[in-house]
Amino acid sequence: MIKKIRIGILGYGNIGRGVELAVMQNPDMELKAIFTRRNPDSIKNFTEGIKIVNTEDIMKYKDVIDVLILCGGSASDLPEQGPEYAGLFNCVDSFDTHAKIPEYFANVDKAAKAAGKTAAISIGWDPGLFSMNRMLTEAVIPIGETYTFWGRGVSQGHSDAIRRVEGVKNAIQYTIPVEEAVNRIRNGEEPELTTRDKHLRECFVVADEGADKAKIEETIKNMPNYFSDYNTIVHFISEEELRRDHSRMPHGGFVIRSGKTGLDKNKHLIEFSLKLDSNPEFTGSVMAAYARAVARLNAEGRTGAVTVFDIPLGYLSPKTPEVLRKELL
Amino acid sequence: MIKKIRIGILGYGNIGRGVELAVMQNPDMELKAIFTRRNPDSIKNFTEGIKIVNTEDIMKYKDVIDVLILCGGSASDLPEQGPEYAGLFNCVDSFDTHAKIPEYFANVDKAAKAAGKTAAISIGWDPGLFSMNRMLTEAVIPIGETYTFWGRGVSQGHSDAIRRVEGVKNAIQYTIPVEEAVNRIRNGEEPELTTRDKHLRECFVVADEGADKAKIEETIKNMPNYFSDYNTIVHFISEEELRRDHSRMPHGGFVIRSGKTGLDKNKHLIEFSLKLDSNPEFTGSVMAAYARAVARLNAEGRTGAVTVFDIPLGYLSPKTPEVLRKELL
Repeated sequence: MIKKIRIGILGYGNIGRGVELAVMQNPDMELKAIFTRRNPDSIKNFTEGIKIVNTEDIMKYKDVIDVLILCGGSASDLPEQGPEYAGLFNCVDSFDTHAKIPEYFANVDKAAKAAGKTAAISIGWDPGLFSMNRMLTEAVIPIGETYTFWGRGVSQGHSDAIRRVEGVKNAIQYTIPVEEAVNRIRNGEEPELTTRDKHLRECFVVADEGADKAKIEETIKNMPNYFSDYNTIVHFISEEELRRDHSRMPHGGFVIRSGKTGLDKNKHLIEFSLKLDSNPEFTGSVMAAYARAVARLNAEGRTGAVTVFDIPLGYLSPKTPEVLRKELL
Repeated sequence: MIKKIRIGILGYGNIGRGVELAVMQNPDMELKAIFTRRNPDSIKNFTEGIKIVNTEDIMKYKDVIDVLILCGGSASDLPEQGPEYAGLFNCVDSFDTHAKIPEYFANVDKAAKAAGKTAAISIGWDPGLFSMNRMLTEAVIPIGETYTFWGRGVSQGHSDAIRRVEGVKNAIQYTIPVEEAVNRIRNGEEPELTTRDKHLRECFVVADEGADKAKIEETIKNMPNYFSDYNTIVHFISEEELRRDHSRMPHGGFVIRSGKTGLDKNKHLIEFSLKLDSNPEFTGSVMAAYARAVARLNAEGRTGAVTVFDIPLGYLSPKTPEVLRKELL
C-alpha cells in the first residue's frame, strides 16, 4: 500500500474549503486537520471525522502532517504565516501580491531551507497557471506580445472598496475583459492597450435607504487606483437580488501570446483560458496538486521556496513517469 | 560574457529549417553546423557563415556542439538516430509515434545515461505542449474529461496516403475539428465522442489526366485507418491551384479539460489552444527552447532521457529565476 500524503489546512475561509474539497477528489491524499484561529466548535466542515484544531495547537501535528496548505490572505496573513510555517512544515500558499513576491520568496526560502522544508509559494491560477503560460509561451516564441485578461469574475478587492463608500450597504464587482480588445488580439494584431482598453468594471450596489445614489455612483467611478482608470458600470439592486444573483464566485480569464517566427513572419497565437464556476474551489484544487509536488520534492531533498517555474509538471500527477509517458505524452 | 549555447541541426527538412529560424530569434544560442546526408553543396540555408556538413563528419563536432537537435522523421529516422546520437551528444527530438514512445524512451535513456548525455524526446506541440496541458489539467481537476482536437491543419501522413491512390498526381489533406463537438464541450457538456464526431477530413486532390475521379474519391473515403472512420470531403483541383492555395503549412488545435469540483459540482473549463501559420517553424521554436533546458540539465548532471513532464518550466527561459519571479509570476 502506498502511503497517502497527509494534508493540513491552515485557515478555513473560501480557499480553505476549496482545498478540503479538492483533497476529497485525490485518493492519494488524506486530510489530517484543519487549523483555525476561530473557535473550532463554531466550524462546520465537509470531511467526516476531521479534527478542527485551534492554531495554537498546531505544533502537536508536526509529525502528523506532510504538507500544510496555507489558506490565509496575502495582505496580512501570509507575510507572517509564510515564513513562520515554512520553518515548521512543508507548505503551499497562494501569495498573490505580485509586487511583493521577490521579498516574500526570500523570506520563505530562508526559513524553509533552515528547517529542511519545502514551500511552494504563489500557487493558484494567477499567480500560478497563468504565470506558467506567460513564461512558457514567451520562451517558445521570443518575438511577440503576451496579454493577460481576467474575468468575467468577482474581484474581492474592488467589491470591498465599494463597500467602504458612504451610503453603500453591500456590493459586488465584476471584472470583465473588453471584447473588442480580445478580438483584435485573437485576429493576430499586437495592439498596445491601456488599462481602460482591456477591462471594464461592472458593479452591483445595494444602497442604504435614503442614500444619494447619484453621489455613490460618482464616488465609485472616480475612485483612484480602483475605478478611475476604467470604464465602470454601476447598477443599484436590492439586498435580495444581490443574494439571489451574485452569491457564487465565478471567475476566469486568459493568457494570449501573439508572436512571429521565420523570415516571412509567420504568425502564431497561443491561448490558455479558464472558465471557472468557483474561483476558490479551483484555486484550492491547484494548491492540492502542488502539495503532492512539494511532498515529493522534500522527499528528494530539494528544500527552500519554489514556484511554478521550478517544479517539473510530472510531480503534480499521482501517476508514475512511465504511466504519464504512455497515457498522456 | 555569458557563453552561448552551441546548437547543431541534424536533418535539414521543414523542421530543420524551423529550428534554424528559431535559433536566430534566441540571442543566447548560436548555430554551429547543419548536418545532412545530402550533398552539402546542394543546400541553401538561412544563417550566414554556417557550415553545411555531411553527416559522416559529425564526430568532428563532438566538442563544438552543446545540443544536437534531431530533425528527422519518426517513422524511419529517429528510431535509429535517437539512441545513436544520444550516445554522443545532448539531444532534442520530436519523436511523435505515440504508441512507441515507451520503447523509444527506454532506448534513448540507456544510450544517453551510458554517455553522460541528456536527451529530451518527443518535443513539439503534440507530443509536447499539448501533452503538458493534458497532464497538468488532469492533475488539477481529477474528476473530468480531457479532449484533444487537431486542426485546421495539414496532416502529412494523410496527404501521403492520398498520393498513393491510383490516378492521383498530388494531394493535400486538412484535419478539421467538428465545430458542433467543440461547442458542446465549451458549453460544459462532457460528451462521449467517436472519431467521426471529433474531426472531419478535407482533401484537395490533383488527378492524373483522364483518371476516374469518382473511383479516386471512393477509394479515399473508404481507406481503412486513414479515412473510413471519418466524414471526408474530396475536392478535385488543378496543380496550379494546389500550389497557389495549399503550399503553406498552417496547423493548430486545442486541449480542453472539462471537470467538476465541490459538493454542488461546480464546473470548470481549461483550454489550451494553438493557431499556427507554420507548423514546422512553431515545432522548431519549441525544440529550440528545450535545447536550452537540455544544456542546463546536463550541466547540472541530470543525464538520460527526459520528457516535457520532467523539466521545470523555468529551464526553458533565458531569464534567471529571480527575473522570472519578478516579471512573469
